[in-house]
Amino acid sequence: MALVVQKFGGTSVGSVERIRNVAKRAIATQKEGNDVVVIVSAMSGETNRLLKLAHEVIAIPEAREMDVIAATGEQVTSALLSLAIHAEGGQARSLLGHQVKILTDGAFSKARIKTIEGSKIFSTVKKGQIAVVAGFQGVDEHGDITTLGRGGSDTTAVAVAAAIGADACEIYTDVDGVYTTDPNVCPSARKISKISYEEMLELASLGAKVLQIRSVEIAMKYGVPVHVRSSFNDSPGTWVTGEDKSLEDVVVAGVAYDKSEARVNVIGLHDKPGVVADLFSSLAEKNVSVDMIIQNATTGASDRADVTFTLATTDLVRAKPFIEEVGKRLGAQEIRYDQDVVKVSIVGLGMRSHAGIAARMFRILAAENINIQAISTSEIKVSCLVHEKYTELAVRALHDGFGLSEDKSAK
Amino acid sequence: MALVVQKFGGTSVGSVERIRNVAKRAIATQKEGNDVVVIVSAMSGETNRLLKLAHEVIAIPEAREMDVIAATGEQVTSALLSLAIHAEGGQARSLLGHQVKILTDGAFSKARIKTIEGSKIFSTVKKGQIAVVAGFQGVDEHGDITTLGRGGSDTTAVAVAAAIGADACEIYTDVDGVYTTDPNVCPSARKISKISYEEMLELASLGAKVLQIRSVEIAMKYGVPVHVRSSFNDSPGTWVTGEDKSLEDVVVAGVAYDKSEARVNVIGLHDKPGVVADLFSSLAEKNVSVDMIIQNATTGASDRADVTFTLATTDLVRAKPFIEEVGKRLGAQEIRYDQDVVKVSIVGLGMRSHAGIAARMFRILAAENINIQAISTSEIKVSCLVHEKYTELAVRALHDGFGLSEDKSAK
Repeated sequence: MALVVQKFGGTSVGSVERIRNVAKRAIATQKEGNDVVVIVSAMSGETNRLLKLAHEVIAIPEAREMDVIAATGEQVTSALLSLAIHAEGGQARSLLGHQVKILTDGAFSKARIKTIEGSKIFSTVKKGQIAVVAGFQGVDEHGDITTLGRGGSDTTAVAVAAAIGADACEIYTDVDGVYTTDPNVCPSARKISKISYEEMLELASLGAKVLQIRSVEIAMKYGVPVHVRSSFNDSPGTWVTGEDKSLEDVVVAGVAYDKSEARVNVIGLHDKPGVVADLFSSLAEKNVSVDMIIQNATTGASDRADVTFTLATTDLVRAKPFIEEVGKRLGAQEIRYDQDVVKVSIVGLGMRSHAGIAARMFRILAAENINIQAISTSEIKVSCLVHEKYTELAVRALHDGFGLSEDKSAK
Repeated sequence: MALVVQKFGGTSVGSVERIRNVAKRAIATQKEGNDVVVIVSAMSGETNRLLKLAHEVIAIPEAREMDVIAATGEQVTSALLSLAIHAEGGQARSLLGHQVKILTDGAFSKARIKTIEGSKIFSTVKKGQIAVVAGFQGVDEHGDITTLGRGGSDTTAVAVAAAIGADACEIYTDVDGVYTTDPNVCPSARKISKISYEEMLELASLGAKVLQIRSVEIAMKYGVPVHVRSSFNDSPGTWVTGEDKSLEDVVVAGVAYDKSEARVNVIGLHDKPGVVADLFSSLAEKNVSVDMIIQNATTGASDRADVTFTLATTDLVRAKPFIEEVGKRLGAQEIRYDQDVVKVSIVGLGMRSHAGIAARMFRILAAENINIQAISTSEIKVSCLVHEKYTELAVRALHDGFGLSEDKSAK
């Protein structure tokens, strides 16, 4: 007998009919001999409806009160699913964040889980009931309701699975699993049957938005096996687990792309020690996160240097005045901004033991005449910044070039 | 400086605009130098929307889960009102049932309050914040969410006022106050400026649905002065308070009517000791509440007796088979049912010290040729059952006859 956590997102509980299907699935899992804990999101659209109501009242609502409002979405779903399980002949009991209890810090709207008590969940499943836990929400040490931020139900699911020592955490969503790349861009994309936490983290942060990053971090920290799968069929999805031998044979697990960054070129800075440090510590002080950074080596007698970096496009308007001010102070001759860029990345554990992967990536892009504007690498990832118009071409070329379109990955 | 509890019903918080008005009123009360605690209902229509959703999932939803769902209505309003108070430049903090905490028994959907902790409310108002408490909800000793039943926010308001020793409990509603009778039936109905708890109890239970009966009982038990008034204007409403000299001078405070009962005539029962007791204890066993009871005295040599009683029309279908069965067993010759009846009542503390009030009531009805089908009396109330078609006529005649249409009440 296993202890299984199942998480259903907003689309999977988006209507009474779908809630009924979730109930059937949870009961079926229980009938297979498992103890079942279900984590639910708000019905799709509900959180937005509630936030809109708050914004009608005040332009910038206080985060504490927003969390009181937003938490009702999951509260309703947890009870509705319990009722649906009753309707299907099963036994169930809803549990809210403060009932479980899921203790968080006091950072309203983006709280972090500190501890989760398992006793109420255990006593519920021991009675043969399915424990239906409201996702996304917790309670701080003062008893105030907190929420974990968008996508926080994934985090609840994995953290609950870790806290109760579940054998698996199933994340039901509206996709079949994690793909080698975006199937909308590359029709030959394949579902990955098994991927490591590390690879998943790189893929998630690069835009494959299947699992919230924080939930993957927690799964990795506590070694929770996560199964990402579709709530609309019974096909196996993608297992996200610890590293093992089979995973290390795969050089490139997936190709990701991210259009959310903008490129900034600071041209003709004084080439003196400390100038670059000055530039980026100024931005850090203003809380602007910078992603890729390239400093062009100065050539010949020039005492000038160029620096290129990327930052989130959403931060650009806010950051521009600081960039201009610091650039002027450091003697920049010109500052150029470019939002028409995309960051294309290859991710794979196998890179650690296979040389020349980056060079192969550059060759593949060069063969398509795609100019690389910036490069960054990590142990299991290589990213290239290219013009946005090459997005599809670059992704497909890399997907084919690293053999992801076939049944076996490239060596 | 006073400590004031203000309760706003579903209509008063039915839109963002109305919530804004409630915020302004609470801030104004605070600026007059008071500590303010606000109790809110769900936005009008919201509770029904939530219950409908649950009923789509299952025909008879478990009460525990229903309460989890229903309680979200007040949860949202309490946070929205707090935000609206912020928007108007004030300070506020929402408090839910489990946060206050309002401890109830475990009777889901009709829980009774056991204790209310005042510490969170006190610490909130001491910081200069308006405490916005979600009405209608509490938490049982297991931490499960409970609700107090429809209209339960009145109960929350009065119970909170009693627990924190408030100087007044203001119930804001969509009517101006308590009227001498229903103004829709009798245009000369006047607003009562002051009424005793006892009179209010009789009027409330007779259909003047301004205040929930339970909240009046709690107000009476703890001596909380209640002020029923309109949320749409600043006119003083009706004070519901303990008895005092001025109240006892009023013979009849109001005229009420109630169309929700049906009359049952059981004709020709064996006139033996214990027959009537047998009839009504059988009904009591089936949980059928009976209101008025009249047994006709047997005349002459007959060994038969007739019994008339009333019960809620909503109970009639369920009760009919029992009535038929018991009637047959006790030898009844015929059983007649009549739903076209109305119970008209006069209520007033002054009846205790004024003789002949009932007789005067009968004379007034007789003068209008209204036949009385049944009579019941209590210390401060006389009720007559008449044909439903006489509703308006009877109410107006009694209202005029006891001088309620004028500025001074009749002696």
